[in-house]
Amino acid sequence: MAERTDFRRELGQQLRVDSVRASAAAGSGHPTSSMSAADLIAVLIDSHLRADDHLIFSKGHASPLYYAMLKATGRIDDAELLTFRKLGSRLEGHPTPRIPPTDVATGSLGQGLPIAAGVALAAKRLDRLPYRVWCLCGDSEMAEGSMWESIQHAGWEGLDNLTAIIDVNRLGQTRETMLGWDLDGYVRRLEAFGWHAIAVDGHDVDAIELAYEEAETIRDRPTAVVARTLKGRGVKAVEDQPGKHGKPLDDADEAIAELGGERDLSVRVAAPEGGEPHVFGTAEAQPPSWDLGDEVATRLAYGEALTALGAARGDVVALDGEVSNSTHSEMFREAHEDRYFEMFIAEQQMVAAAVGMQVRGWTPFASTFAAFLSRAYDFIRMAAISRADLRLSGSHAGVSIGEDGPSQMALEDIASLRAIHGSTVLHPSDANQTARLVAAMADQPGISFIRTLRGKTQVRTPAGEDVRIGGSRIAHEGDDVAIVACGITVDQAVAAAETLAGEGISARVVDAYSIKPIDGAALEAAARECGAIVTVEDHWPEGGLGDAVLEALAESDDRPHVRKLAVREMPTSGTPDELMHGAGIDADGIADAARALAREKVG
Amino acid sequence: MAERTDFRRELGQQLRVDSVRASAAAGSGHPTSSMSAADLIAVLIDSHLRADDHLIFSKGHASPLYYAMLKATGRIDDAELLTFRKLGSRLEGHPTPRIPPTDVATGSLGQGLPIAAGVALAAKRLDRLPYRVWCLCGDSEMAEGSMWESIQHAGWEGLDNLTAIIDVNRLGQTRETMLGWDLDGYVRRLEAFGWHAIAVDGHDVDAIELAYEEAETIRDRPTAVVARTLKGRGVKAVEDQPGKHGKPLDDADEAIAELGGERDLSVRVAAPEGGEPHVFGTAEAQPPSWDLGDEVATRLAYGEALTALGAARGDVVALDGEVSNSTHSEMFREAHEDRYFEMFIAEQQMVAAAVGMQVRGWTPFASTFAAFLSRAYDFIRMAAISRADLRLSGSHAGVSIGEDGPSQMALEDIASLRAIHGSTVLHPSDANQTARLVAAMADQPGISFIRTLRGKTQVRTPAGEDVRIGGSRIAHEGDDVAIVACGITVDQAVAAAETLAGEGISARVVDAYSIKPIDGAALEAAARECGAIVTVEDHWPEGGLGDAVLEALAESDDRPHVRKLAVREMPTSGTPDELMHGAGIDADGIADAARALAREKVG
Repeated sequence: MAERTDFRRELGQQLRVDSVRASAAAGSGHPTSSMSAADLIAVLIDSHLRADDHLIFSKGHASPLYYAMLKATGRIDDAELLTFRKLGSRLEGHPTPRIPPTDVATGSLGQGLPIAAGVALAAKRLDRLPYRVWCLCGDSEMAEGSMWESIQHAGWEGLDNLTAIIDVNRLGQTRETMLGWDLDGYVRRLEAFGWHAIAVDGHDVDAIELAYEEAETIRDRPTAVVARTLKGRGVKAVEDQPGKHGKPLDDADEAIAELGGERDLSVRVAAPEGGEPHVFGTAEAQPPSWDLGDEVATRLAYGEALTALGAARGDVVALDGEVSNSTHSEMFREAHEDRYFEMFIAEQQMVAAAVGMQVRGWTPFASTFAAFLSRAYDFIRMAAISRADLRLSGSHAGVSIGEDGPSQMALEDIASLRAIHGSTVLHPSDANQTARLVAAMADQPGISFIRTLRGKTQVRTPAGEDVRIGGSRIAHEGDDVAIVACGITVDQAVAAAETLAGEGISARVVDAYSIKPIDGAALEAAARECGAIVTVEDHWPEGGLGDAVLEALAESDDRPHVRKLAVREMPTSGTPDELMHGAGIDADGIADAARALAREKVG
Repeated sequence: MAERTDFRRELGQQLRVDSVRASAAAGSGHPTSSMSAADLIAVLIDSHLRADDHLIFSKGHASPLYYAMLKATGRIDDAELLTFRKLGSRLEGHPTPRIPPTDVATGSLGQGLPIAAGVALAAKRLDRLPYRVWCLCGDSEMAEGSMWESIQHAGWEGLDNLTAIIDVNRLGQTRETMLGWDLDGYVRRLEAFGWHAIAVDGHDVDAIELAYEEAETIRDRPTAVVARTLKGRGVKAVEDQPGKHGKPLDDADEAIAELGGERDLSVRVAAPEGGEPHVFGTAEAQPPSWDLGDEVATRLAYGEALTALGAARGDVVALDGEVSNSTHSEMFREAHEDRYFEMFIAEQQMVAAAVGMQVRGWTPFASTFAAFLSRAYDFIRMAAISRADLRLSGSHAGVSIGEDGPSQMALEDIASLRAIHGSTVLHPSDANQTARLVAAMADQPGISFIRTLRGKTQVRTPAGEDVRIGGSRIAHEGDDVAIVACGITVDQAVAAAETLAGEGISARVVDAYSIKPIDGAALEAAARECGAIVTVEDHWPEGGLGDAVLEALAESDDRPHVRKLAVREMPTSGTPDELMHGAGIDADGIADAARALAREKVG
C-alpha cells in the first residue's frame, strides 16, 4: 500500500513536471490549472480508468495535464508532448479529437460534463455495457448553468456509471470563485440534485483512491468527488497565488527541480471489462411518402420519416426538449421507446447528450423548436470542433407560426447554423422532401440541421423524385425572372408565379430546400437564363437564403440584380397569413418584387 | 381576514375566467398554465406588489394570466383583453414590452428569472432603492441550466429583494416534470444554493399570503415560494390532466360557469415606497487616443475607452464573465468598482443581468470572449424582442488569437450577431476606432456588439478622424481593385496593397469597421471605381463581412466580381501569423486574390 501511495505521488509529480515542461515549450498554456488536478488524475489512471472507460476533461484548459497523462499512459512520447500548441501538433491548446482517444473538444467551460452525461446515458441505455465515464471539472465552470442542467439530468437518470471529479482549486482567472474552498457548498448542491458527493483533500492520494473506490460502488446515482486542491500545487512561486492563470511558469527549470525533476513513470491502463454493444432489432421499413397535392406539415413528415428510419436502422436514436408533440418526435418515442431520450426543457443538455451518443457510434437526431436551438448555440459550435456527426431538427420556423409571437419564431436559425463549420442546412418545402432529407441526414457527416414548419404545405415533390443534400427543384418554370424560395415561401412563390403568368411574365421558382450546400448550378442557370432573382425567406435578411444565393453567384459570370425578401420588422402575434403578408414574403410581396425586376430588365 | 381571503379567492377565480376567455377569443394560448398560478398572482397583486416593484413572468406562456392581471389592476380594459394574440393587439402570444409595464419579453423558458436577478442587482447596487422584484417561474423551466445559474448567482449576491414564485403544477407540455410534485426536491436544491425556500399549497390564499409576508422579511438571501398547484385548476375537464397544454378549453362557457362566472373585481396596486435612484458622480474625462503608428490591442483600447466613458457618465456600468483581464474590462472595475459586476463564468446570467439593468435605465456593457457570447445567443435573441439597449464586447476574435485553438476563437460571431434584429456589429481595426465606437455604442439603441482583437494592430486612424456607426475608412487608395477588410485583416490588406503597388496594381483598402450597418456608399464607390472586390475576414465565410458586402451591392447598378476570403478549414493551434497564412487571409492570400481579380479585369 505504501509503495502504491509513493508511486501515485511520484506519478502526480511527473504529471506536474510534464505540464510545466509542455507549457514552457509552448510559451503559453495553463500549467497551474493542471498542477491542481495532477494527483486526481494520477490515482485515476493508476488504478481506476479502464481502456474502455471514457475520460473527458471538462476543464479543457488543463490540456497540459491531459497530454502529460497521455504520455504517462503510452499514448504519446515525450517528443510529441513538447509539440504542445505548435502548428501541426495533435496537441492543441485545448483538447480536440485530433489526438486519440479524445472523444470531444473542450475549452468552452461547462460542456464536458453534459457530454459525459450523454456518454453515460449511451452506456446504460444504448450500448448496455459496464464502461464508466469520468469527467474532470473545474470549480470556475460550476458557475455555468449548463453544469447544473447536467447534474440535474444525470441525477434524475441515476447515472451511477458517471463520476465527476471537481478540482476545487479556488482560484479562477481573475479572482476567487463564488464558493472558494467551501466544499460543503458543493456537496450540498450536488446531493440536493440526487448525487452522491465525497469531499476529499485533492492532494492526498490515499483519500482520492478511497473516494474513487466508493464512487465505483455507489448504485443508482452519479458520484462527484469534490477535491480541495491548490492551484499551481508544488511550486511555491505559483502555488495558491492569484494572477497565475493561463501562463507558463516564469522559471520552468527551477519549478521542475522543486517538483523533484523529470521522471519517466508509465502506467498501463487496465483492460476493459469487454462485452459487445447492444444491437437494436430492425425491420423492413418504407420511408413515408405522400401524394401530390396533400397538405402536410413538414414537422409531421419529420416525425414519420424519423420513425421509419428508426425501424430500418437500430443506430438511430431521438432526443427532444419536451416538445415532442410539437416537433413530432413523439412518433419515434411511441415506436422506439428504448431509443428515445426525453431531455426536458434543457436544450444544452440535449445537444450535449447527442454529442455524447455519437461518440459511441450512435446516430442521434435532436429536436426542439428551431428558435430554442439558439440556447445550445455554443454547444453546436463546439460540436463542430469535436467533429461530431449530429442531426438537429428545428420546428416552428419563422413568422408563419402565427399567434405565439416572436419568442417562438426562429428567424436567425439559418444564419447561425450556416455559420457552423462543415454544417448542412436544409429547409424542405413539403413532406416528401422532408422524408428524403431526413434519411440523407443519417449518413451526413458534421452538423446537419433540418428546419420544419408548423403549418401545412402542399406536397409538390413527387414521391420518387431525387431529393438530395445540395439539390434543389424547379417548382415553376419560367425565364423572365427567378424566384428562389424555401420552406413556407415556396407555396407563396408558386402562387406569385401563377399571378405573374397571367400578366405575361414567366417566373421560374427554384425551391432551394438545401441552403448549405446550395445548388450552385441551378442558381447559375437561373441567373443566366432569367437575368434577375428575387429571394424570399421566412427569416431575417442577414445570413439566410438570400445571402447564400448571393454567395453562390459572387464569382459567377452572371451576377444579376438580386432582391432579397425577408422579415425586416419585429413580428408580432397574428395569423400566419397576416404576418407573412406584413413581412412582404407572401405571394403579393413576391409578385410585386418579381414584377418590378422583370420590368426593369425589359426597360 | 376572512373577507380578504374570500376576495383573494374570488380574484383568483376571475383571473382564471379571464384566462379562459382570452384564450377562447384567440383560439389558442395556454389557459391551463395560467389557471395553476392564478391564486399566486391574486394574492400578490392584492397585497404585496407595489407600483414600483417589478414583476416578470418567466413562464411567459402564462400570458393569459398576465393579461388578466393587467385587467384586474386597471392597466387594460376587458375589450383589450379579448384582442389577445390578434394582429395589432398589444397582447401578444407571450408578453412583450409592447404592453406596459412589461419590462421584457419572455416565452423562451429559463430567462425571466436571470433577468429578474439583474433588476434586483440594479435595485441594490445601482438604484439603491427598496423596490422588490417578483418572478413567476414554471416548474418545467427548472430543467434549464440558466435557472440554476441564476439561482446560484442570486444566492451569492444575497438578493433579498428578489422573490421567485415557482408554480409547481407538475405537468409539462407532454409529460410530468422530472420532480413532479416533489416540493422538497425544489426546496433542497434552492436552499443548497443559499436561498430561503417556502413550500406552500398554491391554491391556499392564506398560506400564500403568509409565504409572501415571510419573503418580505427575509434578509440577505432571496426567497422562493415553491407552490404545489394543479394545472387547469378549477375546471374538471382539464384540471391536472395530461394533454391539456397550450390549447384553449374545449367548452369555454361551461368552464366559466364552473369557475363561478365572470367577475369584475379590481385591485389598486399599492403605492411605491418612493425614493430617487442613486446617481453616481462623474468627472471630466477625455476619451483615450493613441498616436499613429502605435501598436495597441483593440481589447485594451476597449478597456480604456469604457473606463473613460464610465468617468464621464454615471449611467454606464460594466459586466464581465470572469475574463476581465482578457477583455480589459478590469480597467473599468479598478476605476469604478461600484458599477462593475463580476458575473463569473456564466454568460447567460451576464447578458440577462445586463438586460435587467437596462430595464432600469442603466447603460450596461457586457464583455467576454466573443466565442463565449454564443453561450448566451438565445438571451441576445430575446433581448432584441425585449427592445433592450444592450452593449456587448467580444474579445479574442478569430484565428488570430493563435495558440489557444479553435474553442477560444470566435468565427461565427459576426454572422450570429448580424442576424439579431436591429443589431449593430462593429469590428474596429485599431485603438482610435475602438475608442470612438465604444462611445457611440453608449447611445446606440438595440443590441450593439463590438468585436475586439487579442493581438496588437497598428494605429492607422488619426485620433480626430470621424469614426461612426455606419462608417468606414479608406486605409489605402487605389482603383484597380478594392479590398474590403475589418479588424485584424486591415493591416494585412494594407500590406497586400503595398506589395501590389510595387507590381503596378493600385488597390483600394476599405476598412469596414462598421459591418452592420455597413457603409453602402463607400462600397458602391469601390464597386464603381475599382470594378472588382476582395473581402477578407477572420471569420467563417458564412454571414460575415463578405456577405454584408454582397448584400449591400445586391441591388446596385455595379455588381462586381466579389471574392470572399475567410477561414474555410477548421483551425488548429499555431502562431497568429501561421494561422492567418494557413487560412489565406494574410497579406499573401489577399495579394494573390486581388492580383487575380485585377488581371481578370484587364484580360
